[in-house]
Amino acid sequence: MRVRKKAWTVAEYENNIHICHESEKYKGKWNELFGNGNPIYVEIGCGKGRFISQMAAQNSDINFIGIERQSTIVATAARNLGNNAKNVYLIHGDVENLADFFEVGEIKRLYINFCDPWPKKKWIKRRLTHRNFLEKYKAVFGDKAEIFFKTDNRILFEFSLNEFCADDWKLSNISLDLHNSDYEGNIMTEYEEKFSEKGFPIYRLEARWEKN
Amino acid sequence: MRVRKKAWTVAEYENNIHICHESEKYKGKWNELFGNGNPIYVEIGCGKGRFISQMAAQNSDINFIGIERQSTIVATAARNLGNNAKNVYLIHGDVENLADFFEVGEIKRLYINFCDPWPKKKWIKRRLTHRNFLEKYKAVFGDKAEIFFKTDNRILFEFSLNEFCADDWKLSNISLDLHNSDYEGNIMTEYEEKFSEKGFPIYRLEARWEKN
Repeated sequence: MRVRKKAWTVAEYENNIHICHESEKYKGKWNELFGNGNPIYVEIGCGKGRFISQMAAQNSDINFIGIERQSTIVATAARNLGNNAKNVYLIHGDVENLADFFEVGEIKRLYINFCDPWPKKKWIKRRLTHRNFLEKYKAVFGDKAEIFFKTDNRILFEFSLNEFCADDWKLSNISLDLHNSDYEGNIMTEYEEKFSEKGFPIYRLEARWEKN
Repeated sequence: MRVRKKAWTVAEYENNIHICHESEKYKGKWNELFGNGNPIYVEIGCGKGRFISQMAAQNSDINFIGIERQSTIVATAARNLGNNAKNVYLIHGDVENLADFFEVGEIKRLYINFCDPWPKKKWIKRRLTHRNFLEKYKAVFGDKAEIFFKTDNRILFEFSLNEFCADDWKLSNISLDLHNSDYEGNIMTEYEEKFSEKGFPIYRLEARWEKN
């Protein structure tokens, strides 16, 4: 979804302390920027930041970085974060460039929430759980990888289950209807709330991989 | 579901050539009974035999054995098989006794189709994909195991995905809506036809395990 640029977002984008400009220069130095040695969790496509801001507020011992492709949305997320979120930074960037932002082993967990399902078959390589992407994530994670994935799209979830399994990730906490499951502590994204209000089930899984 | 005993089923049960009485005595000798060295595939809970009879007709190079707990249903399945199904036998028995029927390594694939979902939590150990059962299957399979699983029950399928993954089975061809998927050559069971006609999605997976 393209978003119209509002006047305030330009200033917000330039000045908000949560937004990292020239993010590549922090590669390998994110913990210095955060000023601590806490683990770094990354959300791909953080949207307006509801998920990452609540996660950060509830987990002060974790550093969070949100990546979002649209600058206007990054600005909105940054504004929503407020001044107290000391453990969150936002990157205006693309998942394709993950290896430009992070040193191997620098991140400990990846959240992929409600990414574009790219429903047509000819687009499957664009799906963020396509095995080409899984290989890219592995390359950045290093010896050990962890991805938490949510979607409302059945076709994407089915595809993702198969991709993760084919690529030798170990799955757990698989849910085919998250909001009617035992899973506790779920933090909803903006999309998630909208979709689940319409009665659609939310799918979720945790995927882990370790180098042999 | 308990089925009322009809008069003809008693005679059918006693005399039909497809039904193996004292099945334990064939343990380790099933290939002798079939008169060939073809792989043996077993269906747990074969019901009235529609699936196994069609599978057998389409795969003359495979030996099929159906296990069913109710003698009346075994008799019905046997009658439905007809005289040409030379590669099918039926066992009136329980999955709990799998190791009494088969030598380690004697079977190559297990089909679990539309088993009782045992929906309440207190019953989860009765579900045929509970890890206690998976361990039993492994013990009978030996070094290598293969299970093809179908159900219309979302809760059971979600549970099964998690159990297989936790128990280190490798999953593939996972489908969250089999009848609207690319999977070809699906053979419907009696239940499957009934459920899918009501518009319920059918879930399916293939699980493989190998000893390290």
